[in-house]
Amino acid sequence: MRFELTILGSSSALPTSRRNLTAHVLNVYERFFLIDCGEGTQLQLRRNKLKFGRINHIFISHLHGDHIYGLFGLISSFNLLDRTEDLHIYAHEPLRKGIRYIIRNYEGKLNYAIRFHPLDTGQKVKIYEDLRVEVYSFPLRHKIDSSGFLFMEKPRELNIRKGFVQKYNIPVRKIHDIKSGADFITPQGQTIPNKEITEPPYRQRAYAFCSDTAYAEDILAHIKGVDLLYHEATFGDEHKDQARLTLHSTAREAGKTARKAGAGELIIGHFSARYREEQIPQLVEEAREEFENTLPAYDGMNHAIYPYRVSEK
Amino acid sequence: MRFELTILGSSSALPTSRRNLTAHVLNVYERFFLIDCGEGTQLQLRRNKLKFGRINHIFISHLHGDHIYGLFGLISSFNLLDRTEDLHIYAHEPLRKGIRYIIRNYEGKLNYAIRFHPLDTGQKVKIYEDLRVEVYSFPLRHKIDSSGFLFMEKPRELNIRKGFVQKYNIPVRKIHDIKSGADFITPQGQTIPNKEITEPPYRQRAYAFCSDTAYAEDILAHIKGVDLLYHEATFGDEHKDQARLTLHSTAREAGKTARKAGAGELIIGHFSARYREEQIPQLVEEAREEFENTLPAYDGMNHAIYPYRVSEK
Repeated sequence: MRFELTILGSSSALPTSRRNLTAHVLNVYERFFLIDCGEGTQLQLRRNKLKFGRINHIFISHLHGDHIYGLFGLISSFNLLDRTEDLHIYAHEPLRKGIRYIIRNYEGKLNYAIRFHPLDTGQKVKIYEDLRVEVYSFPLRHKIDSSGFLFMEKPRELNIRKGFVQKYNIPVRKIHDIKSGADFITPQGQTIPNKEITEPPYRQRAYAFCSDTAYAEDILAHIKGVDLLYHEATFGDEHKDQARLTLHSTAREAGKTARKAGAGELIIGHFSARYREEQIPQLVEEAREEFENTLPAYDGMNHAIYPYRVSEK
Repeated sequence: MRFELTILGSSSALPTSRRNLTAHVLNVYERFFLIDCGEGTQLQLRRNKLKFGRINHIFISHLHGDHIYGLFGLISSFNLLDRTEDLHIYAHEPLRKGIRYIIRNYEGKLNYAIRFHPLDTGQKVKIYEDLRVEVYSFPLRHKIDSSGFLFMEKPRELNIRKGFVQKYNIPVRKIHDIKSGADFITPQGQTIPNKEITEPPYRQRAYAFCSDTAYAEDILAHIKGVDLLYHEATFGDEHKDQARLTLHSTAREAGKTARKAGAGELIIGHFSARYREEQIPQLVEEAREEFENTLPAYDGMNHAIYPYRVSEK
């Protein structure tokens, strides 16, 4: 039951020879949710052997070029690959016109439809839901409208304790009922209470994506208790004035956000190209002074999201 | 005196894990001329350690996405890198509006000016000239307006024969005159004829870029005798109907064009993503049946352009 993140690009506005522009893929039970789509995203998808056909939903945090310029090529490639399935794009309203402009001028007619879902800029809103996952957008604080995304796994079924299917010879058709909470009645009429044969599932997992944003305490409520937080850390302490000025975060502020939100793990990225690779550990150190469980993003990073806290039920 | 090509992307419309979208850099005496700008061009520039600041002229063959979607990110990065020098873009007229649209919506004000030079779609035209090189555009044959580019090195100075500067103790201020054809008069009044102390320079070098295009004999006159021809070879013989239909060339046709134009060398590229890497040698073989001196393009290929024929003077 995969719930794992692949980071395709971890640089900020300027790419480096090692770091591409922002894009993440969240694999939820083999469906791929693409988050941001910087230039080169389709190339990174290929390099990481992520199948284009599994992407039906693209979430765009904000309309700066480094988060969207890969979209046009990806739309084009989907078409060349004979896609017919709808493609859903969740982004701020002005992108609708931009996509239409590019397609009209440089692509022509597509084989598939693009369904555009404008984001709410003012509050946390559920923007997508299926059997496995709910997705929310929530406002960040940046120079232009910017949104974070929260991916919440839905409650999972109870687990039947090891050996109990054999012990009571439970028929397959009853298993779903028991996993949903039903007691089991044996052929002899004996009632076995559900609690005796099941154990609680892992708590459902949650991933939050926060980029680009300044540090802002009103974000905390939206990402409370997530198992994994990706947070931008464009700057280190020594450039905190620059962070203030450009409405970005320092690594330390990313750590503070993770700590105050009660996150399980933190991945920092969106590093300014001014930092050489050997300086990244310093940014991680600064974040760790606020929140120990911090990792730096790198391109191609694949990270299974672990349910940090057991079920509260 | 560099005159060399670096291939940044050699795939056709769909990139592969090994091949990026079309972009070439021609290094002419350390000035970089960028030809086409597929998605990922700025990333490939970084990987190949080609300095952004040396690019002042970008030539775009046609307005299909795989040849232009890297332009927006590159324009953005130039700005972040505090470029102030004018950027010249040579492309078909509709791109002017497209660039303006993207900048207005996703970039804001740039620190530098973009000078747009629309291409003539009907005939061969000189579009650029400096002390070292002349650049011409000429019509190709494709589904939409498409242009090839010819880069012609200007005639080079005569070379002073080895040892003659010492032998006659020629003063530095006379060297330029002699290299331009003047005789040398010794302090004793003796005239040394120019022919005795100089030898002809290498013939000036020429590079032509032909992509995307169907095979068309009227192209030959525009690229006659080039030292290096890059020609698209989207398909092999077995897909020649597909080449016909999409107005692309086969590898064999690229070879035929090189042979009939009297080129020195041929590099083929823009391979359809249907071909696996191990199939590329077959395309090269087909081209070589027409023109022996054929090489396949690969990403990162760096190729000095050699003056194949000695001076005709």
